[in-house]
Amino acid sequence: MSKYWSSLVEQLKPYVPGEQPKMANLVKLNTNENPFGPSPKVIEAIQKELNDNLRLYPDPEGQALKDAIASYYADYDIKASQVFVGNGSDEVLAHIFQGLLKHDDPILFPDITYSFYPVYCGLYQVEHHAVPLTDSFEIDPADYRRTNGGIIFPNPNAPTGRYLVLQHVEEILQANEDSVVVVDEAYVDFGGESAISLVNKYPNLVVCQTLSKARSLAGLRVGFAVANEELIEALQRVKDSFNSYPLDRLALAGAVAAFEDRQWFEDSCNGVINERERLTEELEELGFEVLPSKANFVFTRHKQKSGAAIAALLRDEGIIVRHFDKPRISDFLRITVGTSDQNNALLKALAEL
Amino acid sequence: MSKYWSSLVEQLKPYVPGEQPKMANLVKLNTNENPFGPSPKVIEAIQKELNDNLRLYPDPEGQALKDAIASYYADYDIKASQVFVGNGSDEVLAHIFQGLLKHDDPILFPDITYSFYPVYCGLYQVEHHAVPLTDSFEIDPADYRRTNGGIIFPNPNAPTGRYLVLQHVEEILQANEDSVVVVDEAYVDFGGESAISLVNKYPNLVVCQTLSKARSLAGLRVGFAVANEELIEALQRVKDSFNSYPLDRLALAGAVAAFEDRQWFEDSCNGVINERERLTEELEELGFEVLPSKANFVFTRHKQKSGAAIAALLRDEGIIVRHFDKPRISDFLRITVGTSDQNNALLKALAEL
Repeated sequence: MSKYWSSLVEQLKPYVPGEQPKMANLVKLNTNENPFGPSPKVIEAIQKELNDNLRLYPDPEGQALKDAIASYYADYDIKASQVFVGNGSDEVLAHIFQGLLKHDDPILFPDITYSFYPVYCGLYQVEHHAVPLTDSFEIDPADYRRTNGGIIFPNPNAPTGRYLVLQHVEEILQANEDSVVVVDEAYVDFGGESAISLVNKYPNLVVCQTLSKARSLAGLRVGFAVANEELIEALQRVKDSFNSYPLDRLALAGAVAAFEDRQWFEDSCNGVINERERLTEELEELGFEVLPSKANFVFTRHKQKSGAAIAALLRDEGIIVRHFDKPRISDFLRITVGTSDQNNALLKALAEL
Repeated sequence: MSKYWSSLVEQLKPYVPGEQPKMANLVKLNTNENPFGPSPKVIEAIQKELNDNLRLYPDPEGQALKDAIASYYADYDIKASQVFVGNGSDEVLAHIFQGLLKHDDPILFPDITYSFYPVYCGLYQVEHHAVPLTDSFEIDPADYRRTNGGIIFPNPNAPTGRYLVLQHVEEILQANEDSVVVVDEAYVDFGGESAISLVNKYPNLVVCQTLSKARSLAGLRVGFAVANEELIEALQRVKDSFNSYPLDRLALAGAVAAFEDRQWFEDSCNGVINERERLTEELEELGFEVLPSKANFVFTRHKQKSGAAIAALLRDEGIIVRHFDKPRISDFLRITVGTSDQNNALLKALAEL
């Protein structure tokens, strides 16, 4: 602790992201990146913007991107004024914690979930209460009927991959009309249904998404939230008190193009889903238990061997997966669904262990 | 106010950035962008990165950029571990306010200064006291000898353009050994000397810079801070509790290239300085008072006509400058130094008014 630090800093427990190793030729299955690249139209759009006006500030509102997202969700009658955009869904989530989840009562989220949530609580001094998942690692809506200052959960949940059907999401929304309920849908496009369809029905719902996973743009840092205008206004006020231009010109151009190329997006998601189903079957044949996943990763444990041991052995083979040394899940590995070749390399290495 | 908002949100008074008009053919002299584009090597570096791995997360530490900045300031013996990078200097400043400027006593900054400072104070509930500039719109170090929780000022100051010599910066540092002193050098490369040369001498000094101005990359959103490791650690802890990857792959690649191409940078700064001197002289001939500027803008008032009136008339001619409707400076205009042609268009329009 330094006398120069704000007193808050000492207490922070920063998030530790999955390793981004600099070695080449690794089979990198640790941070849930998409094995298929982004649409060529994204690259083209960035290329075009690159030759334009990098010397000029971007649009502080990111209006073109808000329009593209609203238009993508036109079936759900979403207006651009119901969309908030930010520098990755992590920044969007940070603003949500500061602007919508800080109240007198503690917020609720699952005990096993995205490990950034308690970090945001530390940063903004938000009290929280962790609600245990069921024994089968599911969210039970009945557990979210207690006094709270807000609720947040990923759907599908991470790192379990388990999906909560929208009917159960609605149960949580209905039981918590006075609280903001945030559904963090980083992985929803790999087989789940988005709660964006419910935004116009529930004034307390915020849905958060990212372009890092299904749209294969982790390197570009774009995320967004959809909610009614009143909730979006809170995020906008926080953002405009923090950084006028969180999205650069290239990120805005690329993100718009990513929403416009639906075909590439759907093919990419289907490719991941197919590989996930194959990977799941073959892991089961090798004696692994695999939780049912609607994400672009599987959460799995071996019936005999510990997660840490397998992760270490795989690492020796140049294959990186993620292991969480945490209660209830220390036996598990979270394995990103890779390309066919990557998944084969993984399965081969596991078979040999 | 919505029942769903955190109580803070209602009180926020968000920053209003200079207009980014969508009309073509405007002479845009309102947001201090560089009239010369970025180095072609920046474009090349981004192009190369674009064909690589946009599907993968960027380096969360931005190590290559920290290395490039340290290497650029090698004469001052700056190590990469003394550099913090972020999504524009606005994000860097936000983290500085939260991590280093929130103490029991109010922080100090000039009454006429970057209008984002009081906004950050609102966002992080930091008390502040505005210290009046002298009658000639200068910072007087003697005014910064009162109890405080930190000090921040731009150098050159914005929107005045006036520069405080390093000897006076040192006086402020020496008189405030128990406080963090932040020197916000967005405009320093247009004729000022950077206080980065003082970082290894004063453990309480943070210098903040941007790539938006002298390096002509406003559209890319990159800023940084240099300080001793203890202060950098506070910023790192805040950042890692907020957003693991604030800089995307393209921004990182472009920013590294911008620091490597010194010649382009120097030519660009000299080009702006030469035009600034010419613009100043010709404005004076037209009956304007122009404050001595070391920035890429001039702060000027006409001896008879009001600032608001001139701004409105210029707007009718398709020329946009910035007017602040604030005490002490409402007669002034802040005019970005443009290209020769842009400055000529401005001078012609002013001559005709």
